Amino acid sequence: MDETQVLGRFAATFRAADVPQDVLRLSARCLVDYLGVSLGAWGEPAVQIALEVASALGGSEQASLIGGGRTSAVNAATVNGIASHVLDFDDTHDPTILHGTGPVMSAALAAGELAGSSGPDLLAAHVIGFDVAARVALAVHPEHYDQGFHVTGTAGTIGAAAAAGRLLGLTAEQMANALSTAAAQAAGLREMFGSMTKSLHAGKAAANGVLSAMLAQRGWASNREGIEGRRGYWAVLSSRVDPGRATDALGERWELRNDGLKPYSCGVVSHPTIDAMRRLRETAALPLDEIAEVRARVNPYVLELMGKVNPQVGLEGKFSIFHCAAIAYLDGAARVRQFSDEAVRRADVVALRERVHADVDSRLPTSAAFVQLVARDGRTWDARVDAATGTPENPMSDQDLEEKFVDLVVGRVEGDRARSLVRQLLRGDAVPAAREVVALLVGMPV
Amino acid sequence: MDETQVLGRFAATFRAADVPQDVLRLSARCLVDYLGVSLGAWGEPAVQIALEVASALGGSEQASLIGGGRTSAVNAATVNGIASHVLDFDDTHDPTILHGTGPVMSAALAAGELAGSSGPDLLAAHVIGFDVAARVALAVHPEHYDQGFHVTGTAGTIGAAAAAGRLLGLTAEQMANALSTAAAQAAGLREMFGSMTKSLHAGKAAANGVLSAMLAQRGWASNREGIEGRRGYWAVLSSRVDPGRATDALGERWELRNDGLKPYSCGVVSHPTIDAMRRLRETAALPLDEIAEVRARVNPYVLELMGKVNPQVGLEGKFSIFHCAAIAYLDGAARVRQFSDEAVRRADVVALRERVHADVDSRLPTSAAFVQLVARDGRTWDARVDAATGTPENPMSDQDLEEKFVDLVVGRVEGDRARSLVRQLLRGDAVPAAREVVALLVGMPV
Repeated sequence: MDETQVLGRFAATFRAADVPQDVLRLSARCLVDYLGVSLGAWGEPAVQIALEVASALGGSEQASLIGGGRTSAVNAATVNGIASHVLDFDDTHDPTILHGTGPVMSAALAAGELAGSSGPDLLAAHVIGFDVAARVALAVHPEHYDQGFHVTGTAGTIGAAAAAGRLLGLTAEQMANALSTAAAQAAGLREMFGSMTKSLHAGKAAANGVLSAMLAQRGWASNREGIEGRRGYWAVLSSRVDPGRATDALGERWELRNDGLKPYSCGVVSHPTIDAMRRLRETAALPLDEIAEVRARVNPYVLELMGKVNPQVGLEGKFSIFHCAAIAYLDGAARVRQFSDEAVRRADVVALRERVHADVDSRLPTSAAFVQLVARDGRTWDARVDAATGTPENPMSDQDLEEKFVDLVVGRVEGDRARSLVRQLLRGDAVPAAREVVALLVGMPV
Repeated sequence: MDETQVLGRFAATFRAADVPQDVLRLSARCLVDYLGVSLGAWGEPAVQIALEVASALGGSEQASLIGGGRTSAVNAATVNGIASHVLDFDDTHDPTILHGTGPVMSAALAAGELAGSSGPDLLAAHVIGFDVAARVALAVHPEHYDQGFHVTGTAGTIGAAAAAGRLLGLTAEQMANALSTAAAQAAGLREMFGSMTKSLHAGKAAANGVLSAMLAQRGWASNREGIEGRRGYWAVLSSRVDPGRATDALGERWELRNDGLKPYSCGVVSHPTIDAMRRLRETAALPLDEIAEVRARVNPYVLELMGKVNPQVGLEGKFSIFHCAAIAYLDGAARVRQFSDEAVRRADVVALRERVHADVDSRLPTSAAFVQLVARDGRTWDARVDAATGTPENPMSDQDLEEKFVDLVVGRVEGDRARSLVRQLLRGDAVPAAREVVALLVGMPV
């Protein structure tokens, strides 16, 4: 087969006007979410260190940094991509655990500024880049992920190239070269979960996608079968491949419809457990000293990805189902401040965390969980969640999204302005040109 | 075990003065070879396209481009790394087929300029970066390569980080973070062989190594076990690992002693066959129309890596044992002009190529080959090569190296100046500061 060519033609030539309205609307929601999680992360050490390096390297002022200022398209994609993912609060493609918007939107914004793209073209590039990334990921899921690759870094690179290449006006042949070049740079290891480098996967995916598109635009010639070849991306980075999943119903089935926005800023597989604990906080309403035990039944990925028993810093807390369950019960929330270094060391959190037990149940999908709260006096309360908040079946409302955004940008964007920006962006047709999107956010002159 | 930490401590703290003199001398030879193959490649489309992108991106003038001009350390490492590898004429670590100097020296030169490093420190950084890359590669060889990873891109990234980090003065802990960050970016697919993207592997390895070191210098914290962890580089990118090969006799066994410089500008596994064909050109000296057949017995990698039967462009000729054998007999050489687009289409080359047959013999190492020439009248001549020219057992002489260099830089550096530069660099102690190395080469003011 010829998937690199087929996906390249699709990414280069599918008309923005033919993307369905509901999918464009999902993209506008992703843009709001992306801007919120990225700006909310701007003070994070990982972002600040990456900014220092970008500043040392320097570059033409081609693209905006989400937190303000301009730098080269590659530098901007790197730093913005890191910011988009470092809070572990960005969107998730439900079938593959791909966090697609971080790499794809970071690349699209940078390339879109370079090319002077309109808002609708920016959204269409995100839709199509996301689709390419998700399809490339689907063809090797779950083997690729199970083997230890962080699919956001790997498939994300290819989707970022598709989005950037489209806005740079690549021909179908140039686009196939860009996708193949991106496939050759695809990297990311799950070992990095819980460290700054996890977010670098998203940043480098975005930057390498932009680079691949800029090279292809100038005639860079890569292998024709970079994705599907005998020694190509799929064959080398996975023990099994189902290529049909990458090209089936292309331009008709939109993978963005399978994307979920996160209500909680931690590993998405913990979200049904958090939903359950928040519900138990209401239904049982037991004080900490009366709780004997919390028993959770969860999908096997939960312990594999979030098995840290005794987190010491906030970032580790995001990878601890025990911390997530405890703090969701105690605070009724799981946003940025529930994953600070202080939060994971709080005495009440530690005390409850030690009473949380999790058992895997391979019949449960990642979006479901069953949790039982056992009181010291023997009483029990159950909470069963079938589709966690934020999954495609149970999406966050626009109102939830607005609240998440306002909460994330507090201290950087005044509340009323933040709400008004969210509402403008969610009106789809009112999304401004790529260059103005960030300017609107940080209020700097265009 | 704790290989990321052990290699990090070694790379950060091993004293340059304790690197044995013979190893430093090998490094000086590598530097000469590196400058020759990179400058010789400067007119290649891959290099020119990469330069256009670097120019568009812009950057602080931190580091020299081999062909002249200055740009950011990351841009310089990218372009120089591409140039170092695009002719397929750079050095080869015999046990792993790693082309180590391209990524490592490109990173060392960029970081060395940034840090104002001395010539001896530059060479020591290359020695140690090469050692780290080769050791990381050895631990998973041959499975990692057999699976389809281009080890120059993958392990090269980690070696580049070690070299750059050392010159930037990283502590042992910062260095471990740099190596882990590099491991997370390690990429490269053998599918790309025969296309421009093969050289990008070396360029991005260099650039990502520099980036990792610059991040670590500013406090970037990565996973402690990026190389050896359960979901780390080795486990995810190979079906088997022998970690002891990475740390055994560290600081005593030097992998640069197992490195060979290439007399021929094509896949190194073809070199014994080329040696044999050059010998047959002398011993049989048959004109083309009297040759019935050429029968080669070769290591299995030869057909796997160089099996292109009917190359159409010069770059494909580098991956065709049939072209290599034919042109070596006809021209008595296999340098840059034997791999032009014209050369692979020459009537005499095509005619002889079609008479070349290659059979694999798994008892033959990659450095050996057995070739029989059969005349139309039935006579036969044999040539057996046990250690090809350029292998560690049969190294190129300094004189050969000088000739290769002069031939590569013809038209860019006047012959006497080229010879004088080679002699200066080979006097080890006379290697100038990193910043002056390239200035000397291209004659620009420092």
